[in-house]
Amino acid sequence: MIWDFTGQKATSRHVPGVSFTGIVHPGLMGTAPSADLLATWNRREQALIDTDPDRVPPLALPPLPQDAVLGSLQGADLERAAAEAARTAPPRENGGNQDIKNFTKGSRVFYPVFVDGAKLSMGDLHFSQGDGEITFCGAIEMGGFIDLHVDLIKGGMQTYGVSENAIFIPGNVDPRYERWLAFSGTSVTLDGEQRYLDSHLSYQRACLHAIDYLTTFGYTPEQAYMILGAAPIEGRLSGVVDIPNSCSTVYVPTGIFDFDVEPSASGPTRIDPGQGVPRSSF
Amino acid sequence: MIWDFTGQKATSRHVPGVSFTGIVHPGLMGTAPSADLLATWNRREQALIDTDPDRVPPLALPPLPQDAVLGSLQGADLERAAAEAARTAPPRENGGNQDIKNFTKGSRVFYPVFVDGAKLSMGDLHFSQGDGEITFCGAIEMGGFIDLHVDLIKGGMQTYGVSENAIFIPGNVDPRYERWLAFSGTSVTLDGEQRYLDSHLSYQRACLHAIDYLTTFGYTPEQAYMILGAAPIEGRLSGVVDIPNSCSTVYVPTGIFDFDVEPSASGPTRIDPGQGVPRSSF
Amino acid sequence: MIWDFTGQKATSRHVPGVSFTGIVHPGLMGTAPSADLLATWNRREQALIDTDPDRVPPLALPPLPQDAVLGSLQGADLERAAAEAARTAPPRENGGNQDIKNFTKGSRVFYPVFVDGAKLSMGDLHFSQGDGEITFCGAIEMGGFIDLHVDLIKGGMQTYGVSENAIFIPGNVDPRYERWLAFSGTSVTLDGEQRYLDSHLSYQRACLHAIDYLTTFGYTPEQAYMILGAAPIEGRLSGVVDIPNSCSTVYVPTGIFDFDVEPSASGPTRIDPGQGVPRSSF
Amino acid sequence: MIWDFTGQKATSRHVPGVSFTGIVHPGLMGTAPSADLLATWNRREQALIDTDPDRVPPLALPPLPQDAVLGSLQGADLERAAAEAARTAPPRENGGNQDIKNFTKGSRVFYPVFVDGAKLSMGDLHFSQGDGEITFCGAIEMGGFIDLHVDLIKGGMQTYGVSENAIFIPGNVDPRYERWLAFSGTSVTLDGEQRYLDSHLSYQRACLHAIDYLTTFGYTPEQAYMILGAAPIEGRLSGVVDIPNSCSTVYVPTGIFDFDVEPSASGPTRIDPGQGVPRSSF
Repeated sequence: MIWDFTGQKATSRHVPGVSFTGIVHPGLMGTAPSADLLATWNRREQALIDTDPDRVPPLALPPLPQDAVLGSLQGADLERAAAEAARTAPPRENGGNQDIKNFTKGSRVFYPVFVDGAKLSMGDLHFSQGDGEITFCGAIEMGGFIDLHVDLIKGGMQTYGVSENAIFIPGNVDPRYERWLAFSGTSVTLDGEQRYLDSHLSYQRACLHAIDYLTTFGYTPEQAYMILGAAPIEGRLSGVVDIPNSCSTVYVPTGIFDFDVEPSASGPTRIDPGQGVPRSSF
Repeated sequence: MIWDFTGQKATSRHVPGVSFTGIVHPGLMGTAPSADLLATWNRREQALIDTDPDRVPPLALPPLPQDAVLGSLQGADLERAAAEAARTAPPRENGGNQDIKNFTKGSRVFYPVFVDGAKLSMGDLHFSQGDGEITFCGAIEMGGFIDLHVDLIKGGMQTYGVSENAIFIPGNVDPRYERWLAFSGTSVTLDGEQRYLDSHLSYQRACLHAIDYLTTFGYTPEQAYMILGAAPIEGRLSGVVDIPNSCSTVYVPTGIFDFDVEPSASGPTRIDPGQGVPRSSF
Repeated sequence: MIWDFTGQKATSRHVPGVSFTGIVHPGLMGTAPSADLLATWNRREQALIDTDPDRVPPLALPPLPQDAVLGSLQGADLERAAAEAARTAPPRENGGNQDIKNFTKGSRVFYPVFVDGAKLSMGDLHFSQGDGEITFCGAIEMGGFIDLHVDLIKGGMQTYGVSENAIFIPGNVDPRYERWLAFSGTSVTLDGEQRYLDSHLSYQRACLHAIDYLTTFGYTPEQAYMILGAAPIEGRLSGVVDIPNSCSTVYVPTGIFDFDVEPSASGPTRIDPGQGVPRSSF
Repeated sequence: MIWDFTGQKATSRHVPGVSFTGIVHPGLMGTAPSADLLATWNRREQALIDTDPDRVPPLALPPLPQDAVLGSLQGADLERAAAEAARTAPPRENGGNQDIKNFTKGSRVFYPVFVDGAKLSMGDLHFSQGDGEITFCGAIEMGGFIDLHVDLIKGGMQTYGVSENAIFIPGNVDPRYERWLAFSGTSVTLDGEQRYLDSHLSYQRACLHAIDYLTTFGYTPEQAYMILGAAPIEGRLSGVVDIPNSCSTVYVPTGIFDFDVEPSASGPTRIDPGQGVPRSSF
């Protein structure tokens, strides 16, 4: 999937009719865990894995000693560290791979500090991403650099009651959208099974409704999925207390489409999805 | 908990230092289910209840024949309907109690239709609510009326691939906030148990982090909780794919506080929570 | 010219293809002048009139004793007051007919006080208006009431260096627009005469350019003029120092049109202006 | 006057307590005039100069042959061109030095074309500027480059009724401000002379009111003036038809100050203006 940048805008030869301004951000940023915190991670994630160790895909990913890249460590130190070093895929108490789409230029973030020197690190630069990064690798990855400034609030974790997880103040410069098409979902599986207040599922259902909807305009399901993963869509927890259904919503800015994407009595405008197949087959 | 309205603004004698513009909306709106759809609801919700029938609180609430209010129905019809009529608490395929905070004045909503005449109904007017209505009854309820206009898109469900759940376009008039304080959470329980991509839990943890933070300014945990339930906070699904942790975030607009609520090296401004107890006890 | 209200939206049977959310505001609000200030107004405005007393239209409007409405005053007091009472058309040191389009719900305004009791008054409610109210009576007038709260800052005029003219903080609830079509003008008259840094003229020229542009879509000049007077357009002083030309701009939100109003290689979409005449005659 | 950039933000060692996000833009951009249009400029600007040829400062600036930089022209051609080449200070029909603060990244502009090849040129990059660039050289100048894309609409000037002056669509990425302090002014001179609907003057008076106000917080008048020239303030034509006074307003975003800049009963917070003199002397 290729996205082309023109100034602050992204378009794709693979998704006709869509263009949006990127909200650039690092997918991953955080401080280093203490040895205790690292041990906690490994223990609790292994406990989860142990509930269904043969599951595909797995429930979590334990340390992977083979080919571990660990700086200048060698010998026994290398072996010990490789055996306990956490993968960076998930977000955790230290920040990490939070993939927060509005954590963009001009943001200020407050991380807890667990070791001397904090050992702040960052990476995984995204040109743009929808809330949730629902396509997993569907954020638009890019090269780049970050120019940042670091302050220290001594005792800040205790002073502000922050034992874990980042607090941040997003920058004040985002693309401006006036109109959104919002899809809702509840915590019932595609097979019709009722789940109890499962907001993960209700967001998935909201996204699937958005995909179903966009395909009526001519997009393939894959294209619609890619739009939700890459464009600045918003994923909201709308209702989390009305048993047994949670309600999640996904907001798609209509201004990213160069055609009228709203429902009307005249039916959807059909676009050419550019997939080399007749439109009638969709 | 009392909120006082002044024009479009709400303040509370029970939560000092906070004032915000309401985003008025109906918590509940939707069409009537068909008999088949109603049967589906009862079947799947009962199946959930049956997994843990003695749970307190219950997993779901089945029809409650006693004292059911069913219009002019009488006799056997009343008994039959009372035994199968769904409670209106949860959102479902027909819309219902979605509690979507931005479903406000000027919105346009598209509901699926399951019976002749659609039987659109609505209610549960809110002056304001945070995403998720996390306090359950913490939205600011109010009396009011709705002036609306109804159109029909014949065959719209098929045309637009909408088999269930509402699509809506929010109105273009919301309070404008420039600065947000955002808290993140992951899907690890307070007891340290790792859950698999549980965005409901990660949102709960984000909210708890926000509450912990606000108490360092002098609020009681209950006051902080009420702020999150009533003010126009945003709940976002930030990361949903990085096993085993999802990342949710809650955004609190700093402009709703009449003091500086951001972290700084000088520590939190202490407000008087107005609870008739010395501040030092918090 | 008739505008129809649907909720917060205005449309007009006389201007097809346009709909916008009103920014309701009072055109006129202010405190009473002191006797000295009133005398100053009459003196300086008469001096302006005297420079061209027979001009049509006049340069200013002096007090109009005939049929003056002056509350319970009678006899000599009535005659004296009627001879010196200022017309309320222009804005002055006390506020008055400022016609500020964003002085809307939730605003806070600080007026200087010139007499005991301030004698705050207000009126001329507008449903919507473009910056400048360029059509003079083209704001959408409406009935209504204002619910307000008054505080007094003792000595505030001296404390804040406010000898005249209102300071205000607009409410935080406006329609949200993402895209604007902006027209620029400079201080050269339609006859080609160069004027010196005349921002009034450059705004007029910018508005005339907008009108010329809109007529290419099929609107009559009068319709285009009415759109600029009633819709929430923004009039900006863009450059005021580059002799001899000032530059003013008028921003028209594209979202108020239900067709594509932007320039393109395919030329303007022609709308039916609904004037009962063939489109080809425009 | 030195401004320091940190990311997208500007601060100045010369103006304490202020920081804002720049809206980068070229002050100057446009196409080349035809020989006829150039002659028109020279004729009308000279006619203005002739009304008061000895005025200081002058009403306009005629071509300045001495030291004219005219590419590779030589001899008689150089002399002819130098004698008629327009200065680039003012904006004119071709665009030029319009100094439009929101003509920023992502904008699309439509210029009239007067000669073969259009001869588009641009320059005078600004990091930030307030509406009007009221301090003349008070925009924050910077080096930089522009990456742009050019399309041609054949016959576009006739098709869209554009005989002169640019139309543009601003980019959709601006700093977001929720709260503005707005000052109003009318067309009465500082000496108390009434002028007829002079929006240039009423904007000047609004800006002077803003300056007076800011000095009560401790700023020098020069500092306040610099803030209005450099920060993203908005200058609006609020009322242009109520004889004899126009009303202009200047909107200052309160979020650019790191202290509370709103009026209150407790009086202004006094900042240290950092001018090496006791605060009591202001």
